[in-house]
Amino acid sequence: MYINLEEMRRFSNECFLALDVPKEEAEIITEVLLEADLREIHSHGFLRLPIYAERIQKGLISNKADISIEKENPALALIDGNYGAGQVVAHKAMEKSIEMAEQSGIGLVAVKNSNHFGITAYYSLMAAKQDKIGIVISNVSPLMPAIGGAEKVIGNNPISIAAPSGEGDPIVLDMALSNTALGKVLFAKEKNQPIPKGWGVDSEGVSTTNPDDVLNGGFLSPVGGPKGFGLALMAEILTGVLSGGHFSKMIPSMYDVKQKQSISHFMLTIDIKQLIPLELYYSSVKQLVSYIKDSKKAAGTEQIYLPGEIEFLKEKRNKETGISIEEQTFRKLNELSKQLNIAELKA
Amino acid sequence: MYINLEEMRRFSNECFLALDVPKEEAEIITEVLLEADLREIHSHGFLRLPIYAERIQKGLISNKADISIEKENPALALIDGNYGAGQVVAHKAMEKSIEMAEQSGIGLVAVKNSNHFGITAYYSLMAAKQDKIGIVISNVSPLMPAIGGAEKVIGNNPISIAAPSGEGDPIVLDMALSNTALGKVLFAKEKNQPIPKGWGVDSEGVSTTNPDDVLNGGFLSPVGGPKGFGLALMAEILTGVLSGGHFSKMIPSMYDVKQKQSISHFMLTIDIKQLIPLELYYSSVKQLVSYIKDSKKAAGTEQIYLPGEIEFLKEKRNKETGISIEEQTFRKLNELSKQLNIAELKA
Repeated sequence: MYINLEEMRRFSNECFLALDVPKEEAEIITEVLLEADLREIHSHGFLRLPIYAERIQKGLISNKADISIEKENPALALIDGNYGAGQVVAHKAMEKSIEMAEQSGIGLVAVKNSNHFGITAYYSLMAAKQDKIGIVISNVSPLMPAIGGAEKVIGNNPISIAAPSGEGDPIVLDMALSNTALGKVLFAKEKNQPIPKGWGVDSEGVSTTNPDDVLNGGFLSPVGGPKGFGLALMAEILTGVLSGGHFSKMIPSMYDVKQKQSISHFMLTIDIKQLIPLELYYSSVKQLVSYIKDSKKAAGTEQIYLPGEIEFLKEKRNKETGISIEEQTFRKLNELSKQLNIAELKA
Repeated sequence: MYINLEEMRRFSNECFLALDVPKEEAEIITEVLLEADLREIHSHGFLRLPIYAERIQKGLISNKADISIEKENPALALIDGNYGAGQVVAHKAMEKSIEMAEQSGIGLVAVKNSNHFGITAYYSLMAAKQDKIGIVISNVSPLMPAIGGAEKVIGNNPISIAAPSGEGDPIVLDMALSNTALGKVLFAKEKNQPIPKGWGVDSEGVSTTNPDDVLNGGFLSPVGGPKGFGLALMAEILTGVLSGGHFSKMIPSMYDVKQKQSISHFMLTIDIKQLIPLELYYSSVKQLVSYIKDSKKAAGTEQIYLPGEIEFLKEKRNKETGISIEEQTFRKLNELSKQLNIAELKA
């Protein structure tokens, strides 16, 4: 089911406006969600609109992001998101981080009391589009046990690093620290498909291919075992702990519609040209890309891709064709349109 | 085979002094190597002393680290290591990063033209011992193919993040971005042991358990497939590219004794107290540690460990008993002692 981009934007913006979200903020949330579906990270796209809407309606996400800067020096800032929409809070925080990097060569913004912010790459790419390197980390509600544990204590905290590449698209890594993202398990459930082995375990710690086993009391598994667990723990420290915000078991699921979430972000920008000339940086990246892409291929491989490259190809294609939406998501979006009394989404 | 700490220090310092390394620098290299063996990261301990010595003798590592600061602003610096010993260059760079963080809240030092610097955790821990968070990344010579590749194009670039925990030991992650470190494959070879499946592939890309297959033309595999590969590539950009140094196929193996290596490091320090009060940080870390360590255990697990915790336990024990050295390493060290005309190492 394909949706025209302008129709999707119209629908999403009208939803948020109907929820008393200011126009400028509605547009930011819409663009971040759209970017996810364009890049075919459907788990973080408009699939999430209904739960965002419900949380805004219940006052669990503030309809207006009233952020405050609690601490600030030329290279470091602490922002209280005051429970605004994660997309809006993170967008403002990343703008701040980029601005500080322009001033000081590097800018770190720690954010507390934010919400789920969609795809992490959206924010790191903001830096990469301005000849800077962006590093963005977020915590999320705990999904994984410790190594040797049988209880959710750590999020599959996403990390994104984006580096500009000059004429081409930025190189952008965007990964959750589980073998897969919870959204992909939700997506598999929506599609009534099994999940691959290794994605998660059931409530007793037993490996499963049924998304329901993971969603109902089970756990996602960290990528690479202790390495992924270790990175997830350090991500929790760099986000929830370092911002003075919430972390680990303090953070309820976004599907628990009785409690506010309090998500923290770590947003770092490095202004490349304050270390080395941009020409040198870009010629080095070009050389590195050539080492990778022109390297000897394994049997059966036609092309070697860089992190984010396939997503950029999908984005270009989907900008022409419109984004694809699962039927169940489409149905839920139109249930929402009735409830909010806006024109229904047209496929 | 156990070696008394003072004897090990005496031997190592005398080796480096015999190689015309200044006393202060010899002591830094010795302490970093000792720390590796104390933490039982033997792959990065005195096993490496003979190759360091050979490289110094051949002028591939400068016997004196004559570093220069090429760029500097209050939060950012670029250091040219001028082919000094990696331990000395990295130690000075991390001191600079910590100093800048004290001034500006955050300090990033990019380092080029350095050498293999031993365990990455040594430097991140320098920050953690001063109530700061340290993030250290290095590139190394390429060991892994791209996803779908059959040629070494990317290092298993190590990343270490260390966070102070107050009264207890710091929490410190130190991981290479392969499923294992090349040093561990070398160590298995020294012990004539097979390597676990998943650590590497042979020259044709076929999975193997023979360390020789990996060492002779084969490859290490990235941790978690595309995620580990993506992180390794971004690490390469943050080190070799961002410093204007070398990267990927430009970097020869440290066991190629005909060419200089040119290794780059990324050294970031965050001064916690400039974001939030240290008391809040430490109470949050304590809470997070309790969530993790007191969580429900999987069957068969007696205790849940934090990143680096087992290594601190080993370090404490080995400080009492002395460090353990493989017989083959011991033999090679004493061949070196003859060559350098210093008193032999006593077990």
